Amino acid sequence: MCSPSLMRQVHIPAHVQPPHVHGAVVAEQSHAPAFEEPVADEGGVEPAAQAAGRGVGRRALFRMSAIGGAGIAATATLGGVANAAAATGRGAPGSGPRSSRVVDLTHELGEDFPVVYKLMDQPEIEQVRFIDVDGFNANLLTINEHSGTHIDVPGHFGPGEPTVEQISAELLVVPLVVIRIADRAARDHDTRLTVADIRRYESRYGRLPARSFVAVDSGWWRRVNTPGAFLNEDSGGVFHFPGISPEAAAFLIEERNVVGAGTDTSSLDGGAAAVPLTHQTLLPSGRYGIENLAALDSAPDHGATLVVGAPKHRGGFGGQIRALALV
Amino acid sequence: MCSPSLMRQVHIPAHVQPPHVHGAVVAEQSHAPAFEEPVADEGGVEPAAQAAGRGVGRRALFRMSAIGGAGIAATATLGGVANAAAATGRGAPGSGPRSSRVVDLTHELGEDFPVVYKLMDQPEIEQVRFIDVDGFNANLLTINEHSGTHIDVPGHFGPGEPTVEQISAELLVVPLVVIRIADRAARDHDTRLTVADIRRYESRYGRLPARSFVAVDSGWWRRVNTPGAFLNEDSGGVFHFPGISPEAAAFLIEERNVVGAGTDTSSLDGGAAAVPLTHQTLLPSGRYGIENLAALDSAPDHGATLVVGAPKHRGGFGGQIRALALV
Repeated sequence: MCSPSLMRQVHIPAHVQPPHVHGAVVAEQSHAPAFEEPVADEGGVEPAAQAAGRGVGRRALFRMSAIGGAGIAATATLGGVANAAAATGRGAPGSGPRSSRVVDLTHELGEDFPVVYKLMDQPEIEQVRFIDVDGFNANLLTINEHSGTHIDVPGHFGPGEPTVEQISAELLVVPLVVIRIADRAARDHDTRLTVADIRRYESRYGRLPARSFVAVDSGWWRRVNTPGAFLNEDSGGVFHFPGISPEAAAFLIEERNVVGAGTDTSSLDGGAAAVPLTHQTLLPSGRYGIENLAALDSAPDHGATLVVGAPKHRGGFGGQIRALALV
Repeated sequence: MCSPSLMRQVHIPAHVQPPHVHGAVVAEQSHAPAFEEPVADEGGVEPAAQAAGRGVGRRALFRMSAIGGAGIAATATLGGVANAAAATGRGAPGSGPRSSRVVDLTHELGEDFPVVYKLMDQPEIEQVRFIDVDGFNANLLTINEHSGTHIDVPGHFGPGEPTVEQISAELLVVPLVVIRIADRAARDHDTRLTVADIRRYESRYGRLPARSFVAVDSGWWRRVNTPGAFLNEDSGGVFHFPGISPEAAAFLIEERNVVGAGTDTSSLDGGAAAVPLTHQTLLPSGRYGIENLAALDSAPDHGATLVVGAPKHRGGFGGQIRALALV
């Protein structure tokens, strides 16, 4: 938060400028963040050489990463991520991770995001502080944990099971497996990941890594900004969107020891499931789920690492995440 | 979210068990998550060999990572993170990041977290769905963006400046620089990071990497669970806790081109600043800030990569993050 001393100066003008301070004269022009076009088309990935050549100047540190919709992946070359470690120093610093791209698998969460409205209200983002009055801007968020791109933890479906602040950080940085069923989902909106899909994936890439996270790309994430298309409710009030079969969930737990599994839709079970058996199988087993993943087309089938930026509120049964794939 | 079909079965008993499904008989015992003691003491780091030897079984996937307080870092060996990439496959998968440990720099956010109460209310975590009635548990969160471990983005202090959903994902995975001023802060609660501190750091480790994030470890994160000690308000209503001087912020922007800077306290400016010059310098320049970082003692001075799990709500001026250091 800003300094509490702000209470004493409630009439800061809207055009507050950075101060000219000793040691570094702060020129106004250098403080104007430059907006550039997104570096990737929908579902696309910027060539590494192109991004590396452009570099990231101080005027371009912030760029529109999702202009035009949540379905656009922000990707960039991170040639500078690995920081050559000196031999000296506190602790024993490693060489740092090697990563050439970051893929954002997170939808923007607006008040109009398609939530499962039968079970929760729309998110509210209310501005409660205004820079021309208070000297700064701030929002009050009123959001159900299970809206937007979010995590489900064991306590969501199991009495007394672990809640979100209890997840070990090690389980939030794991190998990412992406299994694609979009072609089938285009024909059958109720289709779900099967054990056969997993075995087919393994016949191509080998056995799933232990402690991996399995994401199902049904192509559904592309529908998020099309009114009605994401929940895809029929005249009888039944939703139709893809999910994961309970059999596949059990296989992933028992036979492959995954840390979790997720979908690019609003339910792990799919929209038409009469009973949430997939939730009931996956979560009480000590695994987590992720729903409403975005831009899975920009992540490779295998070889990436998923970082789950899960929230850490006390007693949480889930919550909004930032899901990033390091490729 | 859970399946919308849950609406049809509001009386699921509290002892719902995972189903026995075709292809994988789900034994009850394998679904009981095992809780273990935290793997690190306060501020400590588990030896890699010890963690690697233990492994992570399916019954131990969830473990208490923060039992006894928010100041305990969750760390673990992630020998399995890098997934050997086959030569074939969609796209061109890299070799995946190499990381031996994950350090959690995030405080648990409870309703009693010490927020700057003059400017915002306490967080509210209200359970609105109950497993014995609804078949699942869920909370409604009502939280000011600027409470707990959180990000401040340019729009927080600049009219029309970028908001949180507009941050490029590449800026959320960056080299982490930790500069320590805890010894001085123990004597002078109002001390702030200076240009001299940065130059002293560089004399030991070399020039700060471009596009790095600079975190100030003032030791203050250890006070978060001690009533009154974190905001440290005097009888005159002035807070006393460390921060970053505006001169140091300007130096980091103009001379070192950082992506951002942060503190383990409730304000980038420190508690006693009469005017929030550090905010006004850093944020409108297109950089971000992080406040209330935790467990910085467990991150190395240099060589780690910071992953900022920032939220992505539309028009956000900041918000709760998951801050992870990959070492």
